[in-house]
Amino acid sequence: MAIKVGLVGTGTVGGGCIDILHNHACDFRRHLGIDVELVRVCSREPEQAAAHGVSDIFTEDWHDIVNDPDIDIVIELIGGTTVARELVLAALAAGKNVVTANKALMATYGKEVMDAAEAAGKELAFEASVGGGIPIIDPLKHSLIANEITSVMGIVNGTTNYMLTEMAERGTDYAEALADAQARGFAEADPTADVGGYDAAAKIAILASIAFNSRVTIEDVFTEGITHVSSIDLEAARDMGYSVKLLAIAHRTDEGIDVRVHPTMIPTSHQLATVNGVMNAIYVVGDAVGETMFFGPGAGAGPAASAVMGDVLEVARHLQQGVLPIVGCTCTDSLPIVPVDDLRTKYYIRFQVNDVPGVLAATAGIFSKHNVSVRSVIQRGKEEGGQVNLSYVTHTARESSVRAVIEEVSQLEAVLVGETSVIRVED
Amino acid sequence: MAIKVGLVGTGTVGGGCIDILHNHACDFRRHLGIDVELVRVCSREPEQAAAHGVSDIFTEDWHDIVNDPDIDIVIELIGGTTVARELVLAALAAGKNVVTANKALMATYGKEVMDAAEAAGKELAFEASVGGGIPIIDPLKHSLIANEITSVMGIVNGTTNYMLTEMAERGTDYAEALADAQARGFAEADPTADVGGYDAAAKIAILASIAFNSRVTIEDVFTEGITHVSSIDLEAARDMGYSVKLLAIAHRTDEGIDVRVHPTMIPTSHQLATVNGVMNAIYVVGDAVGETMFFGPGAGAGPAASAVMGDVLEVARHLQQGVLPIVGCTCTDSLPIVPVDDLRTKYYIRFQVNDVPGVLAATAGIFSKHNVSVRSVIQRGKEEGGQVNLSYVTHTARESSVRAVIEEVSQLEAVLVGETSVIRVED
Repeated sequence: MAIKVGLVGTGTVGGGCIDILHNHACDFRRHLGIDVELVRVCSREPEQAAAHGVSDIFTEDWHDIVNDPDIDIVIELIGGTTVARELVLAALAAGKNVVTANKALMATYGKEVMDAAEAAGKELAFEASVGGGIPIIDPLKHSLIANEITSVMGIVNGTTNYMLTEMAERGTDYAEALADAQARGFAEADPTADVGGYDAAAKIAILASIAFNSRVTIEDVFTEGITHVSSIDLEAARDMGYSVKLLAIAHRTDEGIDVRVHPTMIPTSHQLATVNGVMNAIYVVGDAVGETMFFGPGAGAGPAASAVMGDVLEVARHLQQGVLPIVGCTCTDSLPIVPVDDLRTKYYIRFQVNDVPGVLAATAGIFSKHNVSVRSVIQRGKEEGGQVNLSYVTHTARESSVRAVIEEVSQLEAVLVGETSVIRVED
Repeated sequence: MAIKVGLVGTGTVGGGCIDILHNHACDFRRHLGIDVELVRVCSREPEQAAAHGVSDIFTEDWHDIVNDPDIDIVIELIGGTTVARELVLAALAAGKNVVTANKALMATYGKEVMDAAEAAGKELAFEASVGGGIPIIDPLKHSLIANEITSVMGIVNGTTNYMLTEMAERGTDYAEALADAQARGFAEADPTADVGGYDAAAKIAILASIAFNSRVTIEDVFTEGITHVSSIDLEAARDMGYSVKLLAIAHRTDEGIDVRVHPTMIPTSHQLATVNGVMNAIYVVGDAVGETMFFGPGAGAGPAASAVMGDVLEVARHLQQGVLPIVGCTCTDSLPIVPVDDLRTKYYIRFQVNDVPGVLAATAGIFSKHNVSVRSVIQRGKEEGGQVNLSYVTHTARESSVRAVIEEVSQLEAVLVGETSVIRVED
C-alpha cells in the first residue's frame, strides 16, 4: 500500500518536491520498493499548485492535511516559527511523521519539536534545513557516528559567499556586490538574514547540536555579518595567503561549545577556501576520520527538494517495514556554551586613521597595554598626510582583550575615521 | 543486551576499530543507546592483537568466529577475494551480519555476496570499501536517493594523487614521485595496484553499481594508470588551465554506463582540481541536487575504522530494534556497459619526435585523415634538430579514431621516440 504524503508550502522547494514525485515515483518503486503518493497539497497560493499540476488535491487550510487520517507523512515547507511550529506540533500530535526544511524552527524550537516527535513515537527529519542538497545531517547521524566530532565549520550561506567571492575576484565593494547579488536573485530585497549572518547562525546551531550531542539554539551563537568587510580587507587577506569567508564555526573545547558566525580568514590552502560563488560546504573534523568536507549547492528548488525527498523516502521505507523511528533526538549531553569573551584566536584588525605623526605608536601602545601580541602591522594609504589603513594581525589573543584594544583606539577621536574592520583568523 | 561483534583482521584498520571500541563504547551507549561488545578477534598475527590489548579474546581460526552462536556482527578486514569471500559467505550462511572494507571482494563478487546476504536475511555493509573515511555509500543510498545520478567522478586513490600533486607542484618526474611516495609509506613496494589504476577501478565499480542501480564489476572498468604521465604533461596542462588527476569516472549515458579510470585533465576551476596530496574526493551529479562533492582522507587506520564502525553501529542499531535489513542490494536494473571504443571525449596527446622537417605536417595529416579535429598543437623542444614534444589537444573525438591516429603515428618509425602520452580531457 502506498505511503501517503501531504505537502504544505508550494514555493520553490515545494514545487521541486512535486516535480521529483512526478518524475521519479516509478523509479522509487522499482529501485527501492517504495510506493509514495502525494495525496494533498496546501498553500496560500493556488496558482503555484496549478503550475505544478496539483490543483485537484489542493487546499488552502493546512488542517485538512493534519486531520486527514490517511496521510502518513507531512512535509512542512512554509518556513518561519509561528504557523510552521503550530503545524509541525499538530501533525506529530495527530500521529503523522514530519519532514521539514525549516532551519529557523529547528534552531529555535528544536527541543520542543523533537520532544513532541519522541512523545508521539514519530519521525521528524530535517536534512534540508542545512546546506540545501548537501547530505550533512544524515552523515553526522550515521556514517560518522563512531567519531567524537571536534569541529564543524561551514560556508552555509550562498548569498554572502557569492558576495565575498565577487569582492575578492573583481575588487568590487560591498554595496556593489550586494546589488549584484540582488539583481541575480541570490539576495533578497531585505538581505539582513543573509548579510547579518543570522541564516548561517541557525544552521550552525543545528549542526552543533547534532555533532556534539548537546542542544545549541540560535540564541547561543555569537553572530557577526559581512557588512563591515571591504575589498581592502580581502586584498590584505590575499597578500597574507588568506581567503575571507563567512564561516559558521562550532568547536568542542575543554570549556564547552564554542559556536559563532563571523567573517573569517582561512589559509588559501584550506579546502574551504576553494569553495566559491553560491556553493556551500561543511567541513567536519572527527577524532577517527580526521578532516572531511561536504560540498554542494546550498539553495535552490532542486537541491533542497533532493534533501526533503531523501528524508521522505527514508521515512517511507521505515513505515513500509513497520520500523519505529531509528534515530530521534541525539542531544543526550548538556555542554555549556563558551562565552565569546573567552574566545582565544588570532585577529585581523583594520583601523582607518588620519596619517598624523605618532598614530602608529599610539595604536601599537594600546595593543601592548592590553597584552595583545602583534604579529604584523601594515600601513597603507594614498598620500602622505591623508587617510591610511593600519592593518594589524595579532598572535592568539583573548576576545575580551581585543575588544578593549578596539574600544580604546576608538577613543582616539582625532585619529580614527570610518569603521574598524575585525576579521578573526582560523589557521 | 549487548550486540556481540567478532573481528577478523588486526592490521591497520582492524587496530583502528579496536581502538574506537575501547575509546567510545561508553559514548555509544550514552548517545545512541547501543551496547556493542567486541567478543572475539582473529588474525594470523597474535602480536597485533596483543598490541591492542585483545589477546584474551584472540583466535587464529576464523571459524571460531563464524561458528560462535553469540556473535551478531562479523567484521571482515583481511582483504583479497579468496579467504575473505569464503569467510563472508560462511558468516552470512551462519546468520551473522557482515561489515567489510573489502573493495576487491565487492567489486568482483558483489552480486554473489549481496545475494547471499539477502538469502540469509542479514545485512552486508561496506562503506569503508570506497573513499576510506568519507561517507559516500550511505549518502548515495539514503540522502541522495531521490536523484537520478548522472555522473560519479572520484579521486579515490591517495597514492597516485600524492604523486601527481608532487609532480605538478615540484616538477619531479614519475620515478622520483614514486620513490618519494614509497619512502613516506604512501605507496607499497609493488605499487601496481595503485599506479596501474586497479584500486581505483574496484572503487568506481562499486560506486557505479550503487549510483546507477545496475551491477558494474571491476572487469567492466576500462583502466589506465599514471605510469605514462610525465611532468611535461602536467606543465602543459597547467599552461592550458587544467590539472591532471587520476579520475575514476562513471557516467550514465543514453547508451548505458560509461565507466573508466585514467589520467584526466580537468579545469583548475573544477572542485576536484583542488583536491591535493593523499586526500580523496568523490564528485556526484544528480538531476535534482546538481553537483555535490565528498572530501576526506581515503586511507589510514582512523578514517577506514571510522567508516567500518559507522556501519557496525548502524547494523547494531537495527539489531537492537529488531529491524530486518532496510537496504539490501540496490542493483535492480541491468544497464549495458558502453565499450571504450565508443567513448567520445577530448584528448591531449603528446608525441616525442625527432625534429625533422615535415614532422608536424605528417602527424597533423594523420589526425585529419581519421577525422580527429585538432583544437591546438604546441611544439616544444630544446634545440633545433633535436627531439621535440608535439602536444595535440583535440575537439571531441571517438576513442577508436584517436587510437587509429596513435597507431598510425607510431608507424612513423624514423620520427617517433619515447612513449606517447594520452590524457583524456573532461570539461
